[in-house]
Amino acid sequence: MILNDYLLSGNGYKVRLLLSMMGTAFDYVERDIMKGETRTPEYLEKINPNGKIPALVLDDGRVLAESNAILTYLAEGTNFVPDDRFERAEMMGWLFFEQYDHEPNIAVLISWYEIKGLPENADILGPMKQAGAKRALDLMEKRLSSHNWLVGDALSIADISLYAYTHRAELGKISLSGYPGIRAWLDRIEALPGYVPITWTP
Amino acid sequence: MILNDYLLSGNGYKVRLLLSMMGTAFDYVERDIMKGETRTPEYLEKINPNGKIPALVLDDGRVLAESNAILTYLAEGTNFVPDDRFERAEMMGWLFFEQYDHEPNIAVLISWYEIKGLPENADILGPMKQAGAKRALDLMEKRLSSHNWLVGDALSIADISLYAYTHRAELGKISLSGYPGIRAWLDRIEALPGYVPITWTP
Repeated sequence: MILNDYLLSGNGYKVRLLLSMMGTAFDYVERDIMKGETRTPEYLEKINPNGKIPALVLDDGRVLAESNAILTYLAEGTNFVPDDRFERAEMMGWLFFEQYDHEPNIAVLISWYEIKGLPENADILGPMKQAGAKRALDLMEKRLSSHNWLVGDALSIADISLYAYTHRAELGKISLSGYPGIRAWLDRIEALPGYVPITWTP
Repeated sequence: MILNDYLLSGNGYKVRLLLSMMGTAFDYVERDIMKGETRTPEYLEKINPNGKIPALVLDDGRVLAESNAILTYLAEGTNFVPDDRFERAEMMGWLFFEQYDHEPNIAVLISWYEIKGLPENADILGPMKQAGAKRALDLMEKRLSSHNWLVGDALSIADISLYAYTHRAELGKISLSGYPGIRAWLDRIEALPGYVPITWTP
C-alpha cells in the first residue's frame, strides 16, 4: 500500500494518523503540491484525475482518493467505526461537515499563512473564511463541551478527520482560546496509543 | 420518518429522490430558509444545531443531518450501495467530491440566480465559482464519457447525490453543452423507476 501525500497536508495526515493508530504498514511517497507534482500528466492519468493528495494505491494497483473516503475504506469493520447504524450515520455527518464547513475555512487559512501565502482578494475572502471557521468550531464545541468524542462514547474516524486541521487552527490565525471542549478533546487524541504528529512518516 | 426540507434545495431533493426510488414512505415538513425557519432557537435546539435542511427525524425521535450522511443511512444494505468494499469507498469519494468540489460552486451559483440573489462581492466570487464548477463537471465528464454510472456498473447514491445539482446547473448560468457524457447520464437517471422531479413531495 502506497500513500501519495504531502507532509504538511492535514488531509494526508488524517490517513497517516489512522494507519499509525491501526498499526498498519504502508509506504509513503511525497508529492510536493507547491511544485505541481500532483498536476503532472502522469499523476492525473495514473494516480488521481482530481490532481490532489492523498491518494492511496492498494497492493493490486487500484487507487483511492478523497481523504475521508480513504478513512472509511481503511476503518471499515474496525473499532474506528461505530457498530450502531445510527452512530455510523452520525459519524458520516461529521465527515461531510469536515469537508463542507470546516476544511474550506480552517485548512485554507492555515495554508495561506503556512504554505501558499495570501491569495488575491484575501482582504475579501479572509473575513469570510474566519467567520466560517468560527461557525465550524462553535458547532464542534457544542458537542465537545459535554462529550469526550464526536460520536457515541468512543473515538471514531470523525475525530481523526476533524483533529487534522483543528489542532493547527492557530497557524491560520484562528484562536482556540474560547473552546475549552475542543482543547480537551485535542489533548485526549494526543494521548492515544499510536498517536503521531503531522510531520510523521513511516 | 419526517424530512425537514426546503423544496428548491438540491441537498433535500437528494433524500426525496432516494426515498421515492426506494418506495419508502415519509412525511415532509417545509422549512423556508428564506424566512430563517432553520435558524430559530427551536430548530437549532431540537432539529439541527447546524441550522440547515435536510434533517431527517426518525420514528424514535433521533435526528440525522447532512444530506449525504442521510443517503448513506437510508441506503445501507440496499442496491443503492455497491457490495464491493473498494467500490463502496469509490462511492464515498464521489460523495465527498460532491460536498467539496461540486456543491459549493454549482449549488451556490444556482442559489444566487434562482433563490437568494447575488451576494456582495459577486464580481469576485462569481468567476471563482464558475471556474470551480467547470473543474467539477470536467472530472464527472471524464468518468461519464465512457461509463453509465459514477461507480461500477450500477446506479448508487453517488449518482443520486451528484444528479441533484448537476441537472439544474444551467439555472446557475453554467453551460452543460460541452458535456455529452453528463447529459446522457442525466437522461439515464430520469428514466429510472421512482424518478421524481425536485418539486415533488410525498
